[in-house]
Amino acid sequence: MATTTLDMSISLDGFVAGPHVSNDNGLGDGGTRLHEWLLGPDGSFDDRRLGDLEPADREVYAEMMSTGAVIAGRGTFEPAQGWGGDHHDGVPIFIISRHPAPPEYADMTRVTYTPDVRAAVGQARAAAGERGVLVHGAGVAPRLLAVGELDEIQLHVVPVLLGQGRRLFDDLPAAQVELELVRAQPGREALHVRYRVRKG
Amino acid sequence: MATTTLDMSISLDGFVAGPHVSNDNGLGDGGTRLHEWLLGPDGSFDDRRLGDLEPADREVYAEMMSTGAVIAGRGTFEPAQGWGGDHHDGVPIFIISRHPAPPEYADMTRVTYTPDVRAAVGQARAAAGERGVLVHGAGVAPRLLAVGELDEIQLHVVPVLLGQGRRLFDDLPAAQVELELVRAQPGREALHVRYRVRKG
Repeated sequence: MATTTLDMSISLDGFVAGPHVSNDNGLGDGGTRLHEWLLGPDGSFDDRRLGDLEPADREVYAEMMSTGAVIAGRGTFEPAQGWGGDHHDGVPIFIISRHPAPPEYADMTRVTYTPDVRAAVGQARAAAGERGVLVHGAGVAPRLLAVGELDEIQLHVVPVLLGQGRRLFDDLPAAQVELELVRAQPGREALHVRYRVRKG
Repeated sequence: MATTTLDMSISLDGFVAGPHVSNDNGLGDGGTRLHEWLLGPDGSFDDRRLGDLEPADREVYAEMMSTGAVIAGRGTFEPAQGWGGDHHDGVPIFIISRHPAPPEYADMTRVTYTPDVRAAVGQARAAAGERGVLVHGAGVAPRLLAVGELDEIQLHVVPVLLGQGRRLFDDLPAAQVELELVRAQPGREALHVRYRVRKG
């Protein structure tokens, strides 16, 4: 069965975005700092730059781009303008949302808005087949965890303290979720850590 | 000059203690989980066990125990009964506190309560000489950071999500503090990461 992997860039103090996140400011104030390890200081992505990445950075990026489906929340998807309807390679995108798709996203053929977490995961796993499922977003992570559908957590830990902003883990019940460290690999700047979620 | 190093065991979601921290429950509910990498599941420390630690765990523990002074907050010191007045090897202990020492700690000859962060750091560095200064506590860390007196951050990242509890970084202003990864080393269970604080 396809593995679901939460994939997030995060500051050492646990923020995945700076303060004042909005649809026009999806990463919050200063949040582009968290993606410099991949995008460079200007925050724009240029495929030719990929060859300049260090091996560890290139490897985790290639893994991300080899997944066969994407699950995200509106808070990730919409500020990114729905990735133009295609995150990578035309794989299906499932957006967990209580609300139907806004008009600008309703016509994107690869995108499905659904309030049903389990259904979204089931469809994403089926679509991914042998490949993995990429999970993006601080909002969807606890929802997958809560229903036992999050298999792995991969964090790109950026060597910075942001102090304020949006936390990745901010909405969990007080219950110990045991993990297992699968990999810890320093890139040029970010430390890439991958954990398996232990299911009781 | 002696290096000040914040040293904390922390869950992947950023907690250094579980919920309901009090003087009788210094690590909060379930917080002993964060120290199992060193203390074992029973939470008691037995020097003979030290030989059973894996090399990476033993190394970071030995580093901690080779420091020449300790700086902590009351919230760390008092629930630990003041370490019986001796954290290790009789090195001086500085407790950052607006209040004078409670009677049970006032007579501890190695312990100094002081409200003055800079003075405490200055005295600790002087006492440590060639050795390092061990900094303990979620409360004191931001205070040292704020005055530019925190040189390093060492975290023992435990593979667990606690969901709720006391965060290490919960009280920082919205200002990017740049760090540099010095070391990332997996132990038997915890991932030991050490960062240098970059000073502007």
